[in-house]
Amino acid sequence: MRLVRIAHGGSPSWGELEGDTVHLTRGMAGERTGERVALSAATLLAPAEPSKIVCVGRNYVNHIKELGNDTGELPKEPGIFLKGPNALAAEGDTVDYPEWTGDFHFEGELALVIGRRARGLTPENALDHVAGYTCGLDLTARDLQKTDLQWFRAKAADRFCPLGPWLETDLDPADVRVVTRVNGETRQDGRTSHMIFGVPAILTYLTRYVTLEPGDVVLTGTPEGVGPLSRGDTVEVEVEGIGVLTTRIG
Amino acid sequence: MRLVRIAHGGSPSWGELEGDTVHLTRGMAGERTGERVALSAATLLAPAEPSKIVCVGRNYVNHIKELGNDTGELPKEPGIFLKGPNALAAEGDTVDYPEWTGDFHFEGELALVIGRRARGLTPENALDHVAGYTCGLDLTARDLQKTDLQWFRAKAADRFCPLGPWLETDLDPADVRVVTRVNGETRQDGRTSHMIFGVPAILTYLTRYVTLEPGDVVLTGTPEGVGPLSRGDTVEVEVEGIGVLTTRIG
Repeated sequence: MRLVRIAHGGSPSWGELEGDTVHLTRGMAGERTGERVALSAATLLAPAEPSKIVCVGRNYVNHIKELGNDTGELPKEPGIFLKGPNALAAEGDTVDYPEWTGDFHFEGELALVIGRRARGLTPENALDHVAGYTCGLDLTARDLQKTDLQWFRAKAADRFCPLGPWLETDLDPADVRVVTRVNGETRQDGRTSHMIFGVPAILTYLTRYVTLEPGDVVLTGTPEGVGPLSRGDTVEVEVEGIGVLTTRIG
Repeated sequence: MRLVRIAHGGSPSWGELEGDTVHLTRGMAGERTGERVALSAATLLAPAEPSKIVCVGRNYVNHIKELGNDTGELPKEPGIFLKGPNALAAEGDTVDYPEWTGDFHFEGELALVIGRRARGLTPENALDHVAGYTCGLDLTARDLQKTDLQWFRAKAADRFCPLGPWLETDLDPADVRVVTRVNGETRQDGRTSHMIFGVPAILTYLTRYVTLEPGDVVLTGTPEGVGPLSRGDTVEVEVEGIGVLTTRIG
């Protein structure tokens, strides 16, 4: 099932998408209210209400190599960093090229949204705590990532996390294709089966240290092929079984 | 004025503190509801409802030196990292020594909470966007801070950010004393006038990149004297003009 979050009557509403019809629900994955809206008449919002956005860096071997971070050994543990809710943007949004970076990169990823409070998960029960999966674009100021103390400006600035178009609840994240196109040209083409840490391992690791709340977002890392963007570019992140997230660079 | 956040009737409430009396308000710094509670009968909560907790690292020269990070040059820009709301703890709380670190450190700091949405602030108007000031304890897994890709486990784990006891609205943050005691012994004793980046400079810098929302927390960095904690320790962070934040290590 597809769960959408839309602007409706001036406030955000969740709904279930059937064809072009959004059946509004009480909260994410809640009961239907009985009210319906045409998707074509609605504005999609980022399908998440996170208290935090937790991201995995260096989760694909060939991406580690392309950034020159290959030490000859695989990471023993996921490398984690945070964005705040200020980073969210939605399907179709324009994100302005920040005037303070000279190397603004795309990183297309599989993202997930937590459905139930999660602490101390196991590989066996981890996926039960996922509300659904979506496409994520981990926008990155690559120059500042290299020079700053931590990846704050590089990763966590406003609108550096487009997410959407919706949550797909029926997806096995173990082996889906993740493709990123810039102006129609394929730039990244990976499969989640090539992740060093798969989704159950990521969630098990994270919840040793932090409590994940319903609505929290996890970005699972990007495959090889990342690169710089220019003003006017259109970025599409397509995850097999979910759909396409389109972001314009303004 | 002192603004407190307390557990009241099963849900969090904000109030103004006069003597031992809490005058409940509609939200942080809102109008009084008319209801009163004795502080002695209330449980204090962390005085913030953040969408993010933004922290400044390496903001005191002598702290940079004690950690061996002295390059002979002052940082040209604040070094920023994030915690999520999961990190909050309150006055009087016990924070368990995590079993996954062998070097759990205290860092006492001046903290502030944002009162009005803030983007593109200037040094002149920055302080107008602060709701109040409080004491913060930036708990740190020093061993993992050195080895992990980013400071996620080291800084952002559950309850790694005790905050309180309340917000003081009438404080000039330019030159107040910040003292940290462990089991009654003074371990850190600094003044905010020794910060490399003062509060107006920090807020001006942050809001070039991120929107700060009402309730967001900013930790302003720690003076020299940080050190390891043991199970059973009591940590007190005292900021002049505010009060004392007490945290027990379980």
